[in-house]
Amino acid sequence: MAVKIMGKNAVTTAAENHRQFHELYILYSLLGSMESVMKYCEANQTQIHIMKRPEMDAKFGSKNQGVVAYVEEYEYVDLYDVLKASDAPFVVILDGLEDPHNLGAVLRTAEATKVDCVVIPKHHSVSLNDTVAKVAAGAMDLVNVAQVTNITNTIKELKKLGLWVVGLDRDAPMQYTEIDGKMRIAIVIGSEGKGISRLVKEQCDFLANIPMNGKLNSLNASVSAALMMYHVLLQRM
Amino acid sequence: MAVKIMGKNAVTTAAENHRQFHELYILYSLLGSMESVMKYCEANQTQIHIMKRPEMDAKFGSKNQGVVAYVEEYEYVDLYDVLKASDAPFVVILDGLEDPHNLGAVLRTAEATKVDCVVIPKHHSVSLNDTVAKVAAGAMDLVNVAQVTNITNTIKELKKLGLWVVGLDRDAPMQYTEIDGKMRIAIVIGSEGKGISRLVKEQCDFLANIPMNGKLNSLNASVSAALMMYHVLLQRM
Repeated sequence: MAVKIMGKNAVTTAAENHRQFHELYILYSLLGSMESVMKYCEANQTQIHIMKRPEMDAKFGSKNQGVVAYVEEYEYVDLYDVLKASDAPFVVILDGLEDPHNLGAVLRTAEATKVDCVVIPKHHSVSLNDTVAKVAAGAMDLVNVAQVTNITNTIKELKKLGLWVVGLDRDAPMQYTEIDGKMRIAIVIGSEGKGISRLVKEQCDFLANIPMNGKLNSLNASVSAALMMYHVLLQRM
Repeated sequence: MAVKIMGKNAVTTAAENHRQFHELYILYSLLGSMESVMKYCEANQTQIHIMKRPEMDAKFGSKNQGVVAYVEEYEYVDLYDVLKASDAPFVVILDGLEDPHNLGAVLRTAEATKVDCVVIPKHHSVSLNDTVAKVAAGAMDLVNVAQVTNITNTIKELKKLGLWVVGLDRDAPMQYTEIDGKMRIAIVIGSEGKGISRLVKEQCDFLANIPMNGKLNSLNASVSAALMMYHVLLQRM
């Protein structure tokens, strides 16, 4: 199975990271500005289709940004291998995210905030598909993603490794800005709508809320995650 | 034209805000938990369709959350009317956002951070459609949205009214956390990919960056907007 990635940024990042390309579709008008990608594809004997705008739009819809590649599937990493290499681990655990737009946006923010690894469950969760790749705009090549069978067990392991586990929960008495971002930290973000599951919540060392001063009771999951990730990054800078 | 809204939260919020319902589709199994909506629809002689799960999924796809309503279109407000009523104005200007998921997420964060008005341009921008409503999860009923023909002119007017206009720009020397969120403020968020347009940038009083410590050079637009909105909210609390 190949993953479809679209747009200059995503395709360039994939080539820079030596991801295997199966096929490349590119507009004539972009050849000049995508030279490094073209060279990479030629060197690897990737099948290249040089397209006119109407063909391109007919095949990929109007939002193709002029360049589309089918690349090898993204591989998941081993969480504990990644942690061995980190002095001040920073892990983001997504407890059952379902919307690929949210996962894509989380990966992009994780890349910008130096997260060591994003953890998603094997079941009841979105995985690294085409939509995630599109929204992630290249971040899927740059961020470690681990898949685990049981989030609760993973949290127990992380605690043994000296990480402090912080769950975002709207009913928590502590505000997220009170969390010490310099500690070895794993943050847990709940699914859209349902939040963190009870069993996972019980395993967290701290629960923290994001203040909401309106009438609604939850933010978009990628927004909650970003606020917490930036809180950690800013303290580490 | 009607707007389709889905899910308990969005439908309940619309009823609470006396939005006119054209039609309601609801699962038998949800009747008990949606009593206030049912009463509202009965009082307003809305056409109600009580559905079985297979019918519901066939009509609306599997992500319908059991309740769907067609409601009157969302109306845009007059920005200056809204500002008259505000002691410490807080405006968010979206300079050409194209992705409805991003607009929906921005509206949700705007509701939580007490933004007085979200401003979008009439042209080259996504408008308040079904996807926005779905992602906004009720926020479209609670947040003021104004449509303007020319963002540059709007910024000039806001400056005359004593607002300070802050644009997010990755090349700005100042970090967003240095901005005083207590002042009368309008923040400007650029479009996905392109950022703020040159003419708009020239009109801003300040430009501020969001630090990015990876290799990519932009965040998801709704994430950038959220970081800035929460920076303002936290200083105002």
